[in-house]
Amino acid sequence: MGSIKVAVVGYGHVGQFAVEAVNAAPDMELLGVVRRQIDPELAVRQVSDIKELGEVDVALLCLPTRSVQDAAEKYLAMGINTVDSFDIHGSIVDLRRQLNQAATASGRVAVLAAGWDPGSDSMVRALMEAIVPRGLTYTNFGPGMSMGHSVAVKAIDGVKDALSVTIPLGTGVHRRMVYVELAEGADLAKVTAAIKADPYFASDETHVQAIDDLAQVIDVGHGVEMTRKGVSGQTHNQLLEFSMRINNPALTSQVMVAAARASLKQIPGAYTMIELPIIDLIAGDRESAIGRLV
Amino acid sequence: MGSIKVAVVGYGHVGQFAVEAVNAAPDMELLGVVRRQIDPELAVRQVSDIKELGEVDVALLCLPTRSVQDAAEKYLAMGINTVDSFDIHGSIVDLRRQLNQAATASGRVAVLAAGWDPGSDSMVRALMEAIVPRGLTYTNFGPGMSMGHSVAVKAIDGVKDALSVTIPLGTGVHRRMVYVELAEGADLAKVTAAIKADPYFASDETHVQAIDDLAQVIDVGHGVEMTRKGVSGQTHNQLLEFSMRINNPALTSQVMVAAARASLKQIPGAYTMIELPIIDLIAGDRESAIGRLV
Repeated sequence: MGSIKVAVVGYGHVGQFAVEAVNAAPDMELLGVVRRQIDPELAVRQVSDIKELGEVDVALLCLPTRSVQDAAEKYLAMGINTVDSFDIHGSIVDLRRQLNQAATASGRVAVLAAGWDPGSDSMVRALMEAIVPRGLTYTNFGPGMSMGHSVAVKAIDGVKDALSVTIPLGTGVHRRMVYVELAEGADLAKVTAAIKADPYFASDETHVQAIDDLAQVIDVGHGVEMTRKGVSGQTHNQLLEFSMRINNPALTSQVMVAAARASLKQIPGAYTMIELPIIDLIAGDRESAIGRLV
Repeated sequence: MGSIKVAVVGYGHVGQFAVEAVNAAPDMELLGVVRRQIDPELAVRQVSDIKELGEVDVALLCLPTRSVQDAAEKYLAMGINTVDSFDIHGSIVDLRRQLNQAATASGRVAVLAAGWDPGSDSMVRALMEAIVPRGLTYTNFGPGMSMGHSVAVKAIDGVKDALSVTIPLGTGVHRRMVYVELAEGADLAKVTAAIKADPYFASDETHVQAIDDLAQVIDVGHGVEMTRKGVSGQTHNQLLEFSMRINNPALTSQVMVAAARASLKQIPGAYTMIELPIIDLIAGDRESAIGRLV
């Protein structure tokens, strides 16, 4: 198989790490980055329209979750496989139905929700349920920066910049530590009230602190600890645990790169990560992967 | 889909737990156990020839590793899918080639090496490599009873019964604690020398103790800790860990049951666990699994 031709769409946190991940992949070629504003200082090739890149096998959609569906449908219709890291858990089944229509209509493949949660964590949760079918799984995030929660705080009046750190309290319960750089003349008490009323924070213990220079405390490290205790067959007290301490956008983009590779091995349609054979995520010869990993 | 009709072949440790796991599976029906000696005291249906069970969808081969290939080829030729927990890592690629021929010839599916290691651990190792492509993975077993090592000790002259416990020393290095019940007049020093010379033990730190009544110390609990530290894209220090504390035959047989379910969703051929979509291991509706687990 020749090199897989990849376009990175979007050049925020995840897009920048996606460029590094594609360049590090032994079986891929980065054709360029698709973005609205071209920065002549950057070493990477940038275009405003994907058509300028010639024939693209897979587009990595490194875009805000709310832009994913439109972009995916557009690229699928152009005959390009898509991979996204859509992250609203409750909307994944719906998005999969939509992208499945678009993908089958054009004979292409979409892999959706291909980050780490949803994404690789989902694969671990599914594996845990497969081997311990009855019981409880808890997913405990952090400590680490939540991109979604930080963006939600930034949208609040009086907030210049924000960082929301997720603290795991166990059994899937989380504390939110929110650090805000206030706009000139903003009132911390009002900002705090607005944050605590936001649906992103309303059901969690939330603490808000003002900070002078937010850049000094930003760190994109994150983590998770998943536990499952339950029953295999009729035997109780089976204990499973998975944990990670990782750079968040680096892992997200690496999962997307693995999903891009796998997308070329599936029949047309839309897939979540738990629907892909794990071996398809890995570069190189199939038998050597089996010999090394099984 | 109607109930999956399952036969359990063999009734040792794993076979007994497999009966429980099939009975606990919401989508399966246990037709019976195939074994050489019928025990009229047992509540479970037993037959000496699988043909007595009527139409079987999948046979769970709960047999010693060295009997797996012959049994799998026999049942595949009869038009029955097979699942085994063959556990010699270095021979899996070869066995897969052999069973792939047998399975494709009869239009059936074989899932091989479907225990926990090889098996579900292999899936975790492969997932870890997919999301952190460069770096080192260590698999640390135990503390727990190694079936393979215990059997090897039992075969030594002067040993009436034996238990070999695997102790993890980190970075994939293990200590073997061996407990032997000696035969009348046997010499502990000679037995110890024979154990330490056995290929199963020759490269590990091994301690041998005599014990009066081995049944008092047998416990089939086991465990594993897998760690990977490496690079996603071009970002170092990505830290992953998976650990379990489990009943060994209960987990092995549950993985086999999950693999049996998945075998009915694959095109003919032989598969290791890393070649199966995780969702195929899970009972019930596809979209509800996606909604619950992704």
